[in-house]
Order: sequence, then C-alpha cells, then structure tokens
Amino acid sequence: MFKANGDYLKLRGSYLFSTVARKQEEYRKAHPDKELIRLSIGDVTQPLAPAIIEALHKAVDEMADPETFKGYAPDLGYSFLREAAAENDYKARGCDISPDEIFISDGAKGDCGNIQEIFSKDSKIAVCDPVYPVYVDTNVMAGRTGTFDEVNGLWSDVIYMPCTKENDFMPELPKEVPDVIYLCFPNNPTGGVISKERLQEWVDYANKNGSVIIYDAAYEAYISNPAVPHSIYECEGARTCAIEIHSFSKNAGFTGVRLGYTVVPKDLKSGDVLLHSLWARRHGTKYNGAPYIIQRAGEAVYSEEGKKQLKEQVAYYMKNAACILKGVREAGFEAFGGVDAPYIWMKTPDNMTSWDFFDLLLDKANVVGTPGSGFGPSGEHYFRLTAFGSYENTVRAIERIKAM
Amino acid sequence: MFKANGDYLKLRGSYLFSTVARKQEEYRKAHPDKELIRLSIGDVTQPLAPAIIEALHKAVDEMADPETFKGYAPDLGYSFLREAAAENDYKARGCDISPDEIFISDGAKGDCGNIQEIFSKDSKIAVCDPVYPVYVDTNVMAGRTGTFDEVNGLWSDVIYMPCTKENDFMPELPKEVPDVIYLCFPNNPTGGVISKERLQEWVDYANKNGSVIIYDAAYEAYISNPAVPHSIYECEGARTCAIEIHSFSKNAGFTGVRLGYTVVPKDLKSGDVLLHSLWARRHGTKYNGAPYIIQRAGEAVYSEEGKKQLKEQVAYYMKNAACILKGVREAGFEAFGGVDAPYIWMKTPDNMTSWDFFDLLLDKANVVGTPGSGFGPSGEHYFRLTAFGSYENTVRAIERIKAM
Repeated sequence: MFKANGDYLKLRGSYLFSTVARKQEEYRKAHPDKELIRLSIGDVTQPLAPAIIEALHKAVDEMADPETFKGYAPDLGYSFLREAAAENDYKARGCDISPDEIFISDGAKGDCGNIQEIFSKDSKIAVCDPVYPVYVDTNVMAGRTGTFDEVNGLWSDVIYMPCTKENDFMPELPKEVPDVIYLCFPNNPTGGVISKERLQEWVDYANKNGSVIIYDAAYEAYISNPAVPHSIYECEGARTCAIEIHSFSKNAGFTGVRLGYTVVPKDLKSGDVLLHSLWARRHGTKYNGAPYIIQRAGEAVYSEEGKKQLKEQVAYYMKNAACILKGVREAGFEAFGGVDAPYIWMKTPDNMTSWDFFDLLLDKANVVGTPGSGFGPSGEHYFRLTAFGSYENTVRAIERIKAM
Repeated sequence: MFKANGDYLKLRGSYLFSTVARKQEEYRKAHPDKELIRLSIGDVTQPLAPAIIEALHKAVDEMADPETFKGYAPDLGYSFLREAAAENDYKARGCDISPDEIFISDGAKGDCGNIQEIFSKDSKIAVCDPVYPVYVDTNVMAGRTGTFDEVNGLWSDVIYMPCTKENDFMPELPKEVPDVIYLCFPNNPTGGVISKERLQEWVDYANKNGSVIIYDAAYEAYISNPAVPHSIYECEGARTCAIEIHSFSKNAGFTGVRLGYTVVPKDLKSGDVLLHSLWARRHGTKYNGAPYIIQRAGEAVYSEEGKKQLKEQVAYYMKNAACILKGVREAGFEAFGGVDAPYIWMKTPDNMTSWDFFDLLLDKANVVGTPGSGFGPSGEHYFRLTAFGSYENTVRAIERIKAM
C-alpha cells in the first residue's frame, strides 16, 4: 500500500498566507457591506510598466510567426536575460558574477523552496526568527527539522536567530555552526536592512566555518541608503560561500508574471562537487525554463525606459511605506522598517497576540495585515503591513487605523 | 562543513536531452557547412494558434491597466482555466473530475518530477523500460532507487517493466507490487497506445494492491483511434488510485509557453491522508502559480476557435508522423508508433547500438534523433524520431535517411 510522505504531515497548519486569505474571505462573506483593504500579502497593485507591456506584446507576436516562434527555452534561461542581469545587477555594482552563474526561473519563491534539495539530508539549517515561512516549511517537507515543540513553537533541529527590537532586528552569528544559513535583506517581514560591514561578517563566518549562505535579495530594489548592499557579492569572499536569490516580483511588479533567478557561483564547492552543477542538474531534470515571452519582459526591466519607469514604481510604493510608517506611529504604535524596505513591522498594542490584533484590525478598521507570529515565535506581538497597495487605499487604511 | 545531496551525485551522466544537444552542437561546430534537421527532442515548431495569440495580447493589455492588473494567481490556478479543463478534458468524456481537483502548473515536466515528493521516502516505484527519464531521475534524486548496476543499466530498487516489440511495447502487471506506478500513454518514447480494457486492468490492479498510478497523458491529443482512452479516469475506479498529468506543450504548442496541470482526485487516500491536500500544500509552499497571461492562453485552447485551430495543428504533426513511419519503413527499418502518437520508434539496423546509430544518422544524414538506450536498457537498439519538425524538414530528413 502506497504511503504519504510523513515529513509533509509534520507541517504546521496551512501556509501562512493561505490562512490569512481564508480568514479574510470568511470575514468578507459574513460582512458583505464592508470594504476590506489588503495590506497583507506582499502582492503588488500597480500595472506593469509600459516598457514591459511593449516587450510582452512584441514577444507574443514572435510566437505567432514560424520564423521567430520559440519552443523549449534553454534549461538555464536565455542568454539575453542572463547577460542583462549579470551586467546590471552585478557588474554595475562591482560584483564578479558571470551570466552562466545565473539560473533563470519562474520566481524566487520556488527557488527559495527548491534550493535546499541540493544539500545533504542531514544539513543543519539556520533561519532568522521571524522568517519568510518558505525557508523552514520546505526543510520540514524534506525531513530536516526534527520535531516541533508545541510550547515554544520551534523545530528541534533548526538553529533560530531571533530578531527583535532588542537586537535591532539583526541576527547574531550562531554559536552552533549551521550548514545552511538563510538570510534575507532587506528583510521580510521586519523591513530591516544590513550594512555591508555586518554582511561581510556573515560571509567571513561562513567561509571560516564551512557554511553556505542562501541570500534572498528579493527586496533589494527598495534600498535607498547607499551604504546598504544590494547583493551579497559586494562582500569579499562571497563567491565561495553564498547563493543569491533574486525576484522580479517586487522591483518590476511581476508577482503574477512569474520570473526570478538564482546565482550559484562556480567557486562554491562541497569537496570536489560544484553546487552549480547540482543546481543545473535540478533545472535540467525538474524544470523546463521560464516562458520566452516572460523572459523578454524580464529583459525590458533592464532597458533604459524600463529602469526609469520602475524607479518611479518603486518610489510610488515607498511613498506608501512612508505614509504607513508615519501614520501608525502617529496612531501610537511602535513601528520599524519601511525606509529601505516595503514592509512595516509594528508592535501590537498592549502585548496583544498577533492573531488577536489581526482580528481586531480586520473587524474595526477592515484592514488585512499579516500576524507576526505566522513568521515565527519571535514575531509574536508584532504585525506586518505592506506598502504594495494603491496610494489611495493606503491613505484610507491609515485613516481607519488612526480612527480605531 | 555543508555537504551536497549525495543522491544527486548518484545520477548517471547528464540529462538525456542535454547530452543530445551537446553532441549536436559539437557536430555543428565541426561541420559548419552541414544543415542539421532535428527530429530529436519533442519540441514543437509551428507557431501558436491565432486564438491563443489573441488571448495573450488581450491578457497583456489587462496587465497594463490598474483596473484589470493581476498579481499573485490563486495557488492552484484560476477558476476559468480549471473549469475549462474539467469541462472539456473530463466531463465531455464522461469522467468525473471537478475543477478543484485540477492543479494548474507551469508544465507537465515539473509535475512529473515533483509528484514523487508527496510519497513516502521508502516507496517502491515501477516504470516502463524504456521510459521518459524524468520519472526515474527524480526518484534517484530523492534517494528511492537504490544502487545502479553498471552491467545491466538498472537501479536495484526500481521495478522495471520492459516494453519491447516482443510484448508489443505493452508493460505487464508487475509481480512484485509497487507503491507508485508510472504509466504514459500514448507512450513516450515508443509511440504505443493502450486500450481501455488493458488500462482498466491496471486500475483494478492498483486498487486491489494499494498502488497509485501516475498517468502521464501528455500526448492524448494525438489519439485518433476512438477505442483508445484519452484519460485514465475513463476507467472505473481510477479516482481511488490514479493521478493524471496533462500538458499543453504538445496539443497546443506550449513548449516555450509553459503550462500544464495535474489531477489529484479527492478519493485518493493513504489512510486518512488525502493526496490532494499534500499536493495542494506543495503548491502553496513551493510554487506561486502559472502566469496570468499564460493561464488565459490556456483558456483559449478550449475556445471553439482554439479547438478548431489546434485540431489542424495536431493533424499537421500527424502528417509528419505518417511520413516518417512510411519513409523509414521504405528505407528498410522496422518501425513502430506514429499512428496515435507523435513518436516513431525504430529498430536500429544490424543490432547497432542506439548511440552508434545516433552518430551514424548525424554524420550521414545530418538528422538528429534520440538514442533509445537513453530511455532505459530495453531501449537499446531502438531510436526515436519525432513528428514535431516542419513538414518540409521532415520530408527532407526522410529523403536523406533513404539515401543513406
């Protein structure tokens, strides 16, 4: 008799954002007259930039003509996109990353979830707490996390690095050495950023101890402070210890378009084994490339027009972030992030639990946010709001929160 | 020190089609004057049908407008596409599959590779031999296949079901009961098909023995014989033992567009555990939905215009298949398939190895095919040609083969 994967059964409840969506839907059904404003999931609301729309139409037309029709894409992505990413995201920042170290995919979430596959089953992972749930959940599904402690909300075989206001939301170098360290800056959910000096300490730690860092750079486009690094490869020695994951969802509004990439430098080795070869093999065996028309849209992100238009789009969302940060502070909340990141991380009032505050905000302000405890136990008593709404809705949400 | 996944290191050589592409490229560089015709990888060559192009343009325009812009898609796919698939691919054929049992994805290859994840690590798999390499390779990567025997070319913990001309390319019900059985009809690579009666025997076997069948129906659009089932759910009892994987690559030319779906009926259980819930959880955690514009293209596949245009496209490729089958037989080869499937499976001459014949065909006819042994040891001394070229190239390839 076939059996289900027992590691899947260890997962806690459902995926955080599915639960948020379900509770939101239940409320909507019970109160059809109320108009909800969603500042919960990190989903963009602004339309695609004109340069991207133009590139999509052009690529669609190519698919209509036998002379220019494209079948299977190259396993690892089209050269035009890999070269544009290498040039703009790395060379322009003084990072030594070549196009053939860039693997195009259908998005950062999948890459974040799949990357653990290339590591040994007994690898010990370290994550920030709170953390984007995908890093932990996919390691639970792979059987790497031990048992779940219902009391403290932690997995027995995971190294947690608490990030709270007490340590300025900055993880400390772990005493027990992990094999794989997940870092995300600008951070989801706290909106914190890391300086180049602090990131260099992580790179040095990883190189010294034989750890590998999975660096999730999904929000790098939101950095305005010139002292904050956009890529881990700005640090010396990162080529021998770091994988970087990049999204087009947040910098270019591609949440519903689906495009991302992962950088695996060829200097990153376990003994004689290049992680680059393993990731290439995974792509070749379990994946068939991102759609041609979408890779052309990605290329347009790097065009002069595209860059100009997307700078405006990012500025639009950061205006929302500033509005939220100012607004919730004026409403009396303690709040963090929101300066170099599209997330505002606020303390719940009166030590209220995150989910109680979720219900309160939903009921009293008709605003949907994300409970901090959904990101890990150290996220309890915190709450995340995102800057990805429309400006009008963001302003109205803040007015409602102030009036609560 | 971090370690690589040792199961990945067990993989044999590189992915079959990557090797074919590399050898083809080496030949091209060594003989720049020769014009190669590729009848190797199952990649389509005809442009997208007008109804699909129109749907793509329309969806792109929606992404340009804040009123109609779409962010993250629903985890499991948009209702419009799931409903169209349920109606056209199932209800119209008398199969009882509801839209919420259909999981939209970015293609059948990924689903074929990922589906093994929801089963226990000690599951025993059974595959046809020869077989689409993805089924076996992804189980190797999951550590399920034991050790590889260099002499017979088999994995110690896999149940192989040889399919040769001696048994009419039809697998026999395995004596040792597998947990998971991979079946693909119309078959890749042999081009064989299964009757409803024979398929019912598999469903009965699986239900009786507690096996689950992964039914890869990627080529169902090529069936012309009305006695051949398009879906395993045409068989009684399949809802309790079968998962079906569907591609848009071959019926609609989506190899470079990327769209597919997997059906997991809610009656399919391991004890109390619904496989539907596990697959939903995988989607929610490791995947973020197929692009909106591409799901709209998928919807157009089921429109009246789309169906008409795609029927012509399939007929175009089946004309190629008939041309190849007739041609290679006239050239003196024994050949199979090509009637209800886009693949022609031929015997190599004089018991030549598949790779030797690959080199011969490449060198003497400048035609690229796929060596049968790449699909498994029982594929040795066979060779696969595909019907997905242009008609002109297919005719020229056959002329060259005849002139060899």
